Amino acid sequence: MDVTVAIDCMGGDHGTHVTVAAAVEYLERDPHASFILVGLTDRIEGELKRLRAVPGPRLRIQHAGETIGMDEPPAAALRGKKDSSMRVAINLVKNGEALACVSAGNTGALMAISRFVLKTLPGIDRPAIAGILPTLKGHTYMLDLGANVDCSAEHLLQFGIMGAELVASVEHREKPTVGLLNIGEEDIKGNEVVKQAAELLGASGLNFHGNVEGNDIYKGTTDVVVCDGFVGNIALKASEGLAQMLATFLREEFKRNIFTKLAGIAVLPVINAFKRRADHRCYNGASLLGLRGIVIKSHGAADVYAFGFAIQRAVEEARAGVLAHISERMATIHRGVA
Amino acid sequence: MDVTVAIDCMGGDHGTHVTVAAAVEYLERDPHASFILVGLTDRIEGELKRLRAVPGPRLRIQHAGETIGMDEPPAAALRGKKDSSMRVAINLVKNGEALACVSAGNTGALMAISRFVLKTLPGIDRPAIAGILPTLKGHTYMLDLGANVDCSAEHLLQFGIMGAELVASVEHREKPTVGLLNIGEEDIKGNEVVKQAAELLGASGLNFHGNVEGNDIYKGTTDVVVCDGFVGNIALKASEGLAQMLATFLREEFKRNIFTKLAGIAVLPVINAFKRRADHRCYNGASLLGLRGIVIKSHGAADVYAFGFAIQRAVEEARAGVLAHISERMATIHRGVA
Repeated sequence: MDVTVAIDCMGGDHGTHVTVAAAVEYLERDPHASFILVGLTDRIEGELKRLRAVPGPRLRIQHAGETIGMDEPPAAALRGKKDSSMRVAINLVKNGEALACVSAGNTGALMAISRFVLKTLPGIDRPAIAGILPTLKGHTYMLDLGANVDCSAEHLLQFGIMGAELVASVEHREKPTVGLLNIGEEDIKGNEVVKQAAELLGASGLNFHGNVEGNDIYKGTTDVVVCDGFVGNIALKASEGLAQMLATFLREEFKRNIFTKLAGIAVLPVINAFKRRADHRCYNGASLLGLRGIVIKSHGAADVYAFGFAIQRAVEEARAGVLAHISERMATIHRGVA
Repeated sequence: MDVTVAIDCMGGDHGTHVTVAAAVEYLERDPHASFILVGLTDRIEGELKRLRAVPGPRLRIQHAGETIGMDEPPAAALRGKKDSSMRVAINLVKNGEALACVSAGNTGALMAISRFVLKTLPGIDRPAIAGILPTLKGHTYMLDLGANVDCSAEHLLQFGIMGAELVASVEHREKPTVGLLNIGEEDIKGNEVVKQAAELLGASGLNFHGNVEGNDIYKGTTDVVVCDGFVGNIALKASEGLAQMLATFLREEFKRNIFTKLAGIAVLPVINAFKRRADHRCYNGASLLGLRGIVIKSHGAADVYAFGFAIQRAVEEARAGVLAHISERMATIHRGVA
C-alpha cells in the first residue's frame, strides 16, 4: 500500500541533518513510501544536496517558515506559530495529503497542536503516548508515557482499548493481553483510580490480564501495559537512566588497564550482539494515540538510524489501519452500552 | 558504640538459612554489635549448629512461635499473630532491648505492625520506605518506595525532611540535596500534589534542588529523591526488571557458541568487576523511616551476603542517631511555625 508521510524536518536536537537523511534512506528500502519534507526550504535543499538526493514525486518539499524550540511552552507554540514545520506537517495529515506525520520536536507542543488540529477519535477523551519497549519475550507496548499526568479510571480503560487495537492491527495478533500497572499483584493494592480501572478493564471484553508490577514490563508479561502518564514517564526515564549507568560502568571496566582493553577487543562481537539486542534506537517512535490522524513522536536526540524506526512506525500504522480499528472498537462499545 | 539488633529470623524466602548465617558472619566483622535472633528456637539452634556457632551474650535467641507468610494480608498478620517472629522483634525495639530490627518478611505486615507497635515520630503523619540506589556518582536515597500509594504535598515534604536527615546523619553530609521526582524540569509540569509539594519543599529550609526526572535517579543528580510510594515502587521494580533483562541478554550472547564462550572466560575478571559495581545486593536494606524505632526491610529473596548489608544498615542508623536527627528537625520546624 502506498503511504505518504509528512516529516517535520526542523524538530529534534539535530534537525534536517537527521530527519532528511533518514527519509532519503527509507525511500530506498520501501518503494511504496513517499515523503513530504516540511521546514525551511533552503535548509532541506542543502541537506539533500549533501546527500546527493533530488526532490521528486516521492520526495517533495513543503516550506514552513517557523520552527518550535525544544523548550518552548506548548501553548505559545500552538497560538503563536501557525507556520511552524510541526504544524504544517500536522495540517498535511488533517487535509489528507499525508497519512501520517513524524516529528522529533517538543513533545508538549506536538501533543497540543495535534489535538487542536486533528481532534480526538469518537469516544476518546484524551490522546495517550504509546511506546514500544524491549522485553525478555520480544517487546511490549506501554501507554501513557507522559501526555496525561492525572487520569481517571475511564481514561485508563480507553488507553487499554487503544493499546490493544494498536497491537492487534500492527502485529496482527488476536486478543492481545492487557496489564494494568500497579504496585502489587493482589487486587487489594493500588490507589482508588487504579482499582476502578481494573474493574472497568475486567468488564470491557479486552483480554485483561489484571495487575502487573514494574518488573513485568521487561519480563514481557503482557502485550500492552496501561498506566497514567506520570507513572509511565517516570518508569521510562528511570529505565533510560539505569541503562546509561550500566553502559558507563561496563565501558569503564573495559578501559581500566591494558589487559581489560585487550579483553574488550576480544569480546567485541559479543558486546555488539548484546548492544544490537538492547539497542533503544530500534524502539524509537512513540504513537500519539487517539487522534484522528497518525502522529509519531521520535526521541529528540535520535540519530539517522533511530529516526528511521520512527518513520517505519508511521508507515506501519498507516498500512495497518490503526485508526479504523480503534474507531470500530469504540463504536462497538458505544452500541453495547446504548 | 554498642548496638543490639533484633533479627526476624523466620522472614524472607529462605528464613533462618539466610538470616542466622548473616548475623553470625556480621558478629565477626563488628565487635560492638550484638544480635537477638527471633523465631522458632529449634530452627535457629539447628542453623547455629550447622554453622558451628553457639549462642552467647552477643548472640541471644528469643523464641517466637508464629511466622507470617509472604502473601498474608497485613491486617490479619497484625491482629491474629501476636507471637510472630516479626512482631516479637519489633517489640524488642519498642521496649529498648534492641536499638533496631531487621526483617526480610512481608513488607505490608512489617509496616502495619511497626506502625501499630512503635507509632510515628512527632510531626510525621506516615512512615515511608527509604532505599538506596547506585548512581553514576555513588548512590542516592529514594523514598517512598511503596508504603503510601496516595500522598499529599505535606507527606512529600515530610519524606524530604526525613530523607535529608537520614543522609546527613548516616553519611555525615551537611545539607544534602533533595529532588522531587516529576515528569519535567519546568515548574509548570507535573500534577497538582507535586506542584504544591515543590512549593513546600522550596520554603522548608532544606537544600531543595527542585524537580528531577526519572533518569536523574541514576545520574545521581541529588542525594535524596522524593516521590509517592506508587511511583517509587514502580520505578524501582521497573529498574529491577530492566537489569534482569539486560543480564539475561548478556548471558545468552556469551553462551551462543564455543567462541563466545571462550571470549566469556577471557573477559570474566571485567564482567565480575562490573557485577560488583552494579550488584543490587550491596544496596539491600530499606528503612521504614518515620517510626519511633529503626526498622529495616530486607529484600525477601536476599542471600546471606545481601542480608548482611541490611544488618549493616540497621547498625549504622542506630549509631548515627537517625531518629534523634529527624525528631530535632521536626521540633525546629514546629517551633518555627508556632
